[in-house]
Amino acid sequence: MTHASISNENDAARFPMTTVNRVKRTPDRGRYDKKTIYQILDAALLCHIAYVIDGRPYCTPTSFWREGDHLYWHGSSASRMIRTQAPGVEVCLTVTHLDALVMARSGFHHSVNYRAVMAFGHAHIVQDTDEKLRLMDNFIDRVYPGRSKLIRQPNAQELKATSMMGMVIETASGKIRDKHVADDEEDYETVPAWSALYPITQILGMPSDCPRQLPGLTRPDDMADFVPDARLDEVMTKTYRRTFGS
Amino acid sequence: MTHASISNENDAARFPMTTVNRVKRTPDRGRYDKKTIYQILDAALLCHIAYVIDGRPYCTPTSFWREGDHLYWHGSSASRMIRTQAPGVEVCLTVTHLDALVMARSGFHHSVNYRAVMAFGHAHIVQDTDEKLRLMDNFIDRVYPGRSKLIRQPNAQELKATSMMGMVIETASGKIRDKHVADDEEDYETVPAWSALYPITQILGMPSDCPRQLPGLTRPDDMADFVPDARLDEVMTKTYRRTFGS
Repeated sequence: MTHASISNENDAARFPMTTVNRVKRTPDRGRYDKKTIYQILDAALLCHIAYVIDGRPYCTPTSFWREGDHLYWHGSSASRMIRTQAPGVEVCLTVTHLDALVMARSGFHHSVNYRAVMAFGHAHIVQDTDEKLRLMDNFIDRVYPGRSKLIRQPNAQELKATSMMGMVIETASGKIRDKHVADDEEDYETVPAWSALYPITQILGMPSDCPRQLPGLTRPDDMADFVPDARLDEVMTKTYRRTFGS
Repeated sequence: MTHASISNENDAARFPMTTVNRVKRTPDRGRYDKKTIYQILDAALLCHIAYVIDGRPYCTPTSFWREGDHLYWHGSSASRMIRTQAPGVEVCLTVTHLDALVMARSGFHHSVNYRAVMAFGHAHIVQDTDEKLRLMDNFIDRVYPGRSKLIRQPNAQELKATSMMGMVIETASGKIRDKHVADDEEDYETVPAWSALYPITQILGMPSDCPRQLPGLTRPDDMADFVPDARLDEVMTKTYRRTFGS
């Protein structure tokens, strides 16, 4: 299987700002350009998806990935989310990277640094079997480049038990805080509280081989980025580009 | 200000299993006991909250904390979430800790280890000023024990600009995957793919002092747990217990 390179045809492209996606709280942190929004999405393995059943909100964590202006995730065909999303219900898919704790001199200015995206669209189930198989391979390769060719292919039972969900990003917003302590001017001199920023990173540990590993198998070359102490967001960005191009 | 110790009066207590919170996909991973659910919540700084405006779902990341069977978070009084949650709308507050990548011998058995909670309830705005001030202090102290006494107290403008939101956990479910590669029996012998588990942790880095630090200030003793390379979930658990008891 070959992966078409997913070029972002126009890095200057922006999502339209509407009442749905406009960042109202701290609007200076808002981002609407696709380049920034896609960078935040492609650095993530995990998202949280909000959807509505009988007027009640649910928020489910799941793995996902992007292809062009589509987002995809998977689920058990038995899951609540999948059964409910069948008719093309609205969803909000959110990604958050926590980057730092920010300790200020007032409670009001305590904060965290982060990169977040909220993407809005209608979810659909991928019905076409060939497309579903292609997406299942991409889901693996997005995290582990080339791995779909090394593993056993899905059987009929697994294909039936797994649903692939997709959505077009109809609109989206990014939100970023990336700065140090920012206090009220008078507080710097008058509040004797130690103030600092603590970086937060999500990192890989040492791999633990499957206890039933076949003899002689070692980490594939495609996984060269998976080194202990590597940042997950950086690894995910590299594996994404390795599989889909940048 | 004193913090009442929040004892979990009955560690064996469980949330009722209903159509709302029952774990349908991989039900063996479901947890309904308050002890497990509270441990997962109290190890987290960040949650994602789903809510509905005009039938459309939104998923917003925010900091939060627990007091007994209540969850609290804050926001700008101008934010979409706060304005909408004013009447006591339903929310789903979800916490997810990503613990490992699991590389199996089929796509179907690729997985991640995680600890997650979905908590359901109705959000309300805390209107009482004394209660709001108490919660603002607790919000700081939950992360940085004792810090509310060191910093400048909220002024009238900040009090007006900040809303504190709360909810009673009406029901909740936990979901945990905590195991190694689990493949189909026949695949262990026949699929020559290197299979492994990569632990994932979120860790603190070296603190960066505010460039305008007053001379002579050092990290307070209450923050002894904030050491470089410490796991954020472990630090949050310790600071939670330091402030609220265990």
